[in-house]
Amino acid sequence: MNGSIIRRILGYVLLLEGALLLLPCLVALYYGEKQGLTYLACAGVTLVLGLIIGLKKAKNNVFYLKEGCVATALSWIVLSVFGAMPFYFTGEIPNITDALFETISGFTTTGASILNDVEALSKTSLFWRSFTHWIGGMGVLVFLLAVIQMSGGSNINLMKAESPGPSVGKLVPKMRHTARILYSIYFALTILEIIFLLIGDMPLFDAITTSFGTAGTGGFGIKNDSIGGYSLYIQWVVTVFMIFFGINFNFYYFLIFRQFKNAFKMEEVKYFLLIVVSAIAIITIDVSRLYDTLGEAISKTAFQVASIITTTGFSTADFNTWSSSSKTVLVILMFIGACAGSTGGGIKVSRFLVVIKTVKKEIHSYLHPKSIRKITLDGKPVEHNTLRATNVYFISFIVVFVASLLLVSIEDYDLTTNFTAVAATINNIGPGLELVGPTQNFSGFSTLSKYVLMFDMLAGRLELFPMLLLINPNLWREVFRVNTHKEIRKPE
Amino acid sequence: MNGSIIRRILGYVLLLEGALLLLPCLVALYYGEKQGLTYLACAGVTLVLGLIIGLKKAKNNVFYLKEGCVATALSWIVLSVFGAMPFYFTGEIPNITDALFETISGFTTTGASILNDVEALSKTSLFWRSFTHWIGGMGVLVFLLAVIQMSGGSNINLMKAESPGPSVGKLVPKMRHTARILYSIYFALTILEIIFLLIGDMPLFDAITTSFGTAGTGGFGIKNDSIGGYSLYIQWVVTVFMIFFGINFNFYYFLIFRQFKNAFKMEEVKYFLLIVVSAIAIITIDVSRLYDTLGEAISKTAFQVASIITTTGFSTADFNTWSSSSKTVLVILMFIGACAGSTGGGIKVSRFLVVIKTVKKEIHSYLHPKSIRKITLDGKPVEHNTLRATNVYFISFIVVFVASLLLVSIEDYDLTTNFTAVAATINNIGPGLELVGPTQNFSGFSTLSKYVLMFDMLAGRLELFPMLLLINPNLWREVFRVNTHKEIRKPE
Repeated sequence: MNGSIIRRILGYVLLLEGALLLLPCLVALYYGEKQGLTYLACAGVTLVLGLIIGLKKAKNNVFYLKEGCVATALSWIVLSVFGAMPFYFTGEIPNITDALFETISGFTTTGASILNDVEALSKTSLFWRSFTHWIGGMGVLVFLLAVIQMSGGSNINLMKAESPGPSVGKLVPKMRHTARILYSIYFALTILEIIFLLIGDMPLFDAITTSFGTAGTGGFGIKNDSIGGYSLYIQWVVTVFMIFFGINFNFYYFLIFRQFKNAFKMEEVKYFLLIVVSAIAIITIDVSRLYDTLGEAISKTAFQVASIITTTGFSTADFNTWSSSSKTVLVILMFIGACAGSTGGGIKVSRFLVVIKTVKKEIHSYLHPKSIRKITLDGKPVEHNTLRATNVYFISFIVVFVASLLLVSIEDYDLTTNFTAVAATINNIGPGLELVGPTQNFSGFSTLSKYVLMFDMLAGRLELFPMLLLINPNLWREVFRVNTHKEIRKPE
Repeated sequence: MNGSIIRRILGYVLLLEGALLLLPCLVALYYGEKQGLTYLACAGVTLVLGLIIGLKKAKNNVFYLKEGCVATALSWIVLSVFGAMPFYFTGEIPNITDALFETISGFTTTGASILNDVEALSKTSLFWRSFTHWIGGMGVLVFLLAVIQMSGGSNINLMKAESPGPSVGKLVPKMRHTARILYSIYFALTILEIIFLLIGDMPLFDAITTSFGTAGTGGFGIKNDSIGGYSLYIQWVVTVFMIFFGINFNFYYFLIFRQFKNAFKMEEVKYFLLIVVSAIAIITIDVSRLYDTLGEAISKTAFQVASIITTTGFSTADFNTWSSSSKTVLVILMFIGACAGSTGGGIKVSRFLVVIKTVKKEIHSYLHPKSIRKITLDGKPVEHNTLRATNVYFISFIVVFVASLLLVSIEDYDLTTNFTAVAATINNIGPGLELVGPTQNFSGFSTLSKYVLMFDMLAGRLELFPMLLLINPNLWREVFRVNTHKEIRKPE
C-alpha cells in the first residue's frame, strides 16, 4: 500500500476545503453575521493542516485501484469531519453526531437533515450547507484532477472510485481534460439555473443556494417547506433543472461538440426520460383527486418525481399523504436513481438497463440454447467485465442494504420508516416515507442509526466499494503490517 | 418445440392427479361426507381427460431445457386448475378465482389462504387442501420420473425446472434412482412426524394433515389458529420437523449411506442452522418481555423462525404484534428461505452463500488485483455457470418482485401489506405482515392482485424461469409459427 500518496491527496483535499470555507466568510461579511469568524478560524485550521500533511512529496506516485479507493473513502471522511466543524463551533448544530450527519448528507448530496427548523440557521451556515451539495455533486477528487497536475496514468483509479455509474467514460484521452469539461458543464448549468430563478424574482441568496442543491442533486432547502413556498414558475424551473442534472453529462458533451448522433443514441438518457414521463403520468392519474386542478396535480407530481428519481430530495408536496400505489412508484424510483455520469445517486438507469437485458438474454437462451447474443448498450456490446461488475454491484447493494436495515430496525420505528430511511440515504435522496417523510427529518434516530445511515450515504455516493474496502479487516491488517515491519513490497 | 412430448407429460400429470383425487374420496367415505361424490366426479373427469391426452405416444421423445420448462409450467397450471375443481363444485369455495388461489397456494406449498373460516370446510376438503402441499413439496414431475420410464438422458431438464435450488445434485448417476431416493426420504420423514404427533395425543386426521403441511413446507392448517391451539409438545415437534424439511435432502442421503464426511462438509446446512439459531436468539431477547416466561418466548420464537425461514407458514403467535426489529428479521428470513434441495422456498441459503462469497471476492480483488481466487462451496470450486445463474436469478427475482409489487400496489393497502404479500407468495411462505399477517388472510385482495400473486407463487416454486418463459411472447410466436406453417425445424 502506497500510504504517502494517500497522505498527499488528503493534504490537497484539506487545502481545497480550507479555500472553499472562505466563501461562506464572504457571505458572513455581506450579511454582517458573527458566525463568519468561526468559519474563518475553521478555514485557517484546515489550511494549516492541509499544508502540513500535503506539502511533503510522496515517496512514489504509483497508485492502483486499492489506493484510489482508500484515498477516495478517506478524502470524503476527512472532508466531512472538517466540513462539520463550523456547524458545531458556531453552536448552530450543538451535537457532534448531528453536525457530522448534516455535513455527510451535504457532501454526499443526500439532503437528509436532522434540523427541525432550517430557517433558524444563519445565512452563512445555510450557504455552506448548500455549498457542500455543489462540491459533492461533481466530486472533490475530480476537481483536484481538473486543477492539479497529478502523476501518470493511474488517475483513472481516483476518478473511477468517485464518479457515479458503472463505468467512467473517458470523453477525451486525457483525464485532466475530461475532468475540466465535466466541471465546465456543471458550472455552466448551475449559472443557467441561477439566471432562470432570478428571472422568476427569487432573491439572489435563495437562487444560489437552490441552484447548488439542484446541481448536486442534493436537496437541502433553506426554507422549512423546501421549495413549496415559491412561485409555480420557480417550481417548474427547479423541476426542469433537476432532470437536467440527472442526465448523463456525456450527453451534454456530445451536444456541445455537435456529435448529435452519439447524443441521441444514448439509451440510458432515453429510458431515463421515459421513466420520468411514465411515472408522472401514473401518479398524476392517481393523485389528481387530491388537488383542485389537473395543472396543479401535474406540477406537484412532476416536481416530486423529478426530485426523487434524480435523488435530489426537494419537495413541494407531502407525498406521505399520497396513495399507496403512488408511494410505491416513488419508492421504486428511489432505487432506480438517475443516469450514470450525472450528479444523481441511486442504482442508476444504465445498471437497470443492463440487468433487464441480462434477464431477457437468459430467457432467450432457454428458447435458443445455441444462439450467442451479446448484450448491447448504445449499439455497442457490453464488455463481460462490466456485466460482472453490474451483477456484483447489485448483490453488494442488497448486502449493504439488508445489513443497514437490520441495524436501523433496532429503533423499533415502523418498517416503512426504517426501510425508506435506509433507501433514502444509500441512494442519496434525502426524504423517505412516514417518520422520515418530506415534512419530517432524521433527528429522531439514535446515534447508532445515524452512524449507520452516514455510512450508507458515503457508501451510496462512492458506489459501495471504497467504503466496503475501508471496513475490511484485511486492508487494515495489511496497512498495519507495512507500517510495523517496514516490509518492502513490490507493487502488485 | 416438441409439442407432442409436452402433451404426453400433461396427460401423465392428469392421470396422476386423478388417482390422487381418489384419496380424499376415502376420507369422505370414512367421515360419511357427501362432498366425496364431487371429488369422485372430479377424479373421474381428470382421469378420462388424462387418458385422452396422454395415451397417444409422442412423435419423438427428444426434449430440451425449453420443453422441460414449458412442460413444467403447464403441468403446474393444469394441476392447479383441476385441483381447484372440487373446492368450487362442492361450493366450499364458491368463487372460481379464490378456489384457484387456494389450490395454487397449496401445490406451490405457499399456504396463503383466502378462507376466513378454515374450520367450516369439510374434512374431505381439508384433507385435499393439505394433501396438495405434500404433492407439491417434492414435485409432481419428480414423482413421474420416479415411477415412469421416460425417454433417454434429457429428464434432467424436467427435474431441473421443478426442483428448488441453484443446481440439482445428481445423487446417483440415474435420474430415476435419484428421484426415488428423494421420495423415499420424503415419505419416511413424513411418517416419522405423524408418529411423533400421535405420541403427543394429536388426533390422526390432524396429525396427517399437519405432517403434510410440514413436509411440503406448505403451512395450511386445519384450525383457524393454525398450530396455536395444540400442546407445547406438538408445537415443538412441528418446529423440529419444519427445520428437518428445510434441510437439503442430500444431507439425509449422505447420512443414510454413511458418507458422514460429505454430510458435515455441507456449508449450506451449517449456515442454515446458524441463521436459524441466531434469529431465534435475537428475536427471543427482543420479545421476551411480551411473554410470561423465557421458555414461552423461546418456544414461540423458535416456531415462528422455523416456520418463516423454511417458508412453511404455520403460526403459533401473531408476530404482527412483535417489535419492528423482530419483524425486520422475519422479513429478511422470508427472502433467505430454506436450503436448496429441500421442499422449502425462498431464494435459498446456498444462493446467499454464493452471493456473499462473490462480494468478498470482489473486495479481495481490490486489495490483490492479480490474485486469482476461486469461489468454493463445500470445498469444491463453484462453476462459472452456477455463479452466472445465481446472479441472473437474483436480478430476475428483483424484476419479478418489483413488477408484482407495482401491480399489487394498485390496491392502496399500506406498503408493508403489499410488500410482504408479494414476499410471502413469491417465496412460498404464506402469511406476511399487517393485513396479510398470521391472523389475517388474502381474501381482501382484488381479482387482479390475486392473479398476480398466483403467478408469483408459481414463479417462486418453479424458480422463476419456467413461468417467465411462459409469458414470453417469443415462445408463443414460435409455437404459433410451427403450428400454422408446419415448418420443419431441426432440434436446436
